[in-house]
Amino acid sequence: MTIAPVACLDQVSVLVEPRMRELIGRLDPRNQRVTAYHLGYCDADGAPTAAVGKGIRPALALLSARAAGQRPERGVDAAAAVELAHNFSLLHDDIMDQDTTRRHRPTAWVVFGTAAAILAGDALMIMAHDALAGDDRPGGAVAAQRLDADVHRLIAGQAADLEFERRDDVSLDECLAMTADKTAALMSCACALGALLCGAPAALTEGLSRFGTHLGMSFQLVDDQLGIWGEPARTGKPVGSDLRAGKKSVPIVHALASGTRAGDAFRALYASDGLPEAELMTARRLLEEAGSRDWVQREADRHLAHALDELAALELPGDVHGDLVDLARLVTGRKH
Amino acid sequence: MTIAPVACLDQVSVLVEPRMRELIGRLDPRNQRVTAYHLGYCDADGAPTAAVGKGIRPALALLSARAAGQRPERGVDAAAAVELAHNFSLLHDDIMDQDTTRRHRPTAWVVFGTAAAILAGDALMIMAHDALAGDDRPGGAVAAQRLDADVHRLIAGQAADLEFERRDDVSLDECLAMTADKTAALMSCACALGALLCGAPAALTEGLSRFGTHLGMSFQLVDDQLGIWGEPARTGKPVGSDLRAGKKSVPIVHALASGTRAGDAFRALYASDGLPEAELMTARRLLEEAGSRDWVQREADRHLAHALDELAALELPGDVHGDLVDLARLVTGRKH
Repeated sequence: MTIAPVACLDQVSVLVEPRMRELIGRLDPRNQRVTAYHLGYCDADGAPTAAVGKGIRPALALLSARAAGQRPERGVDAAAAVELAHNFSLLHDDIMDQDTTRRHRPTAWVVFGTAAAILAGDALMIMAHDALAGDDRPGGAVAAQRLDADVHRLIAGQAADLEFERRDDVSLDECLAMTADKTAALMSCACALGALLCGAPAALTEGLSRFGTHLGMSFQLVDDQLGIWGEPARTGKPVGSDLRAGKKSVPIVHALASGTRAGDAFRALYASDGLPEAELMTARRLLEEAGSRDWVQREADRHLAHALDELAALELPGDVHGDLVDLARLVTGRKH
Repeated sequence: MTIAPVACLDQVSVLVEPRMRELIGRLDPRNQRVTAYHLGYCDADGAPTAAVGKGIRPALALLSARAAGQRPERGVDAAAAVELAHNFSLLHDDIMDQDTTRRHRPTAWVVFGTAAAILAGDALMIMAHDALAGDDRPGGAVAAQRLDADVHRLIAGQAADLEFERRDDVSLDECLAMTADKTAALMSCACALGALLCGAPAALTEGLSRFGTHLGMSFQLVDDQLGIWGEPARTGKPVGSDLRAGKKSVPIVHALASGTRAGDAFRALYASDGLPEAELMTARRLLEEAGSRDWVQREADRHLAHALDELAALELPGDVHGDLVDLARLVTGRKH
């Protein structure tokens, strides 16, 4: 009965991408060019390319509509809105973090300049509203408010993340709250928005929302591990990229706050402006000795288990439940 | 019968500012600090100060509600939404243009850094939606869509403006279209949004919208003149700031496209990376000789006259009509 995860993600290219392309097509030519490049619809010269990005959030939004007993088509606007909001934040975050590569391509600000990338991000955020502002659906206004609230959290999380890079007294609780804002809020939004847009009952939308929060936490904790121990060929980023950048991701803050000898040695090594190449392996070993790698993996597993518990409690139709479980496992296991 | 313009602007501080402060107060502390500084509610250390900014757009939005036969209170959310969208664009534009001073204070990116100013702008844009997303008003959805459409134009206009700085073949039509997008769209939005939110009939909202478009054009043409001939004490900017910055504002593009001997001499002088101090006075004289200063003043007058004609055709109550005329004259005459 269960559609394989690949088929579930395939629905994104079949159903959501055309809607995204239609929305992008309404933009002025200058912003159209930058956003289409960022989304992988074209190269820097405007020649068509295959879209990039895994489409996890839109896939969740389509499943959210199906969880409400509707066809996935009814979740398309929610899916487009969440994916546009996500890409708004990527465009701006890449500028703030001065990241030069995303999805194995130069970032938009590198290709078109900072000003153009700021404007393109702005345009995508407004467009996320356009996606939801169609006909008068029962849940249209509620969905738009939910999206706005979670984008506020996303912005707050990014502001905290940037501040943490300059501080050496970040607590683990602060760091987890930042993660909940920066990543889990929009993932939770994706899981609830399709159902919200269909006017589903609160018991369902709130359950989906909690599923998404735990899924988002698990996803980010796995991502934090990859930022330290991930293989460049899989992550598309250099070895130990978060350590090089001086980030305060969860494993790093866990070690700094661990009170262990290894944690203290890591603190002595870890300058706020990032680690030099020669120290990367030492730093990774100290994080492992401080128990931070294991702790983060356990937390990721714990959040995934909570997510699946929330899902089970909703007593969804078997095929929808199966697809959501498969997608949750894919997202947190990082299988391609 | 007519309330003096000052009283009309006073209503902004009495009615709109508390709503803006309440909305800002919902933000996370980091973005609250940057947005409150930018809006002049506090200094860089967070100590309270008097709000800055003239409040023209919110004043127009309050009058828009009154034009629909409602009390100004009914236009408060529209006024807050437009002012927040305007300030979103100022925060981002100051980064893109690398402007270091606004309203006689250091710009937010100078004080808090580029990343913090990008995020603060993002937060204000989302908040503009929050302002409109209150109870289920008759025109709530329509007002939100109108705001989004005009913010798209504002973004398109800024993208064009930045591109023009790097081009030397900008036509006068292109330049006027950019002005319509970058400035007149949001001014027109302010004039229509209060009435839209009250569910006013299309004949009224469309008439107010056309009034706002002409007013916005006139306002920007006057502003373009001040960017070249304005006194620093009044503008808060250095002498000839647009010439120094290499802008392609309307008077400059008019001269470049004039085919006059003075225009050609100006072109030879005007490098894309701006004019040195020593050449400013020569450049201003050449613009005057090319007839560009006079042409822009005539266009500003023509648009103001059109704006007032549109207003007269609406046959508004005398006090509302009078206040709108007074405000239009204030805005385009730059009286303080």
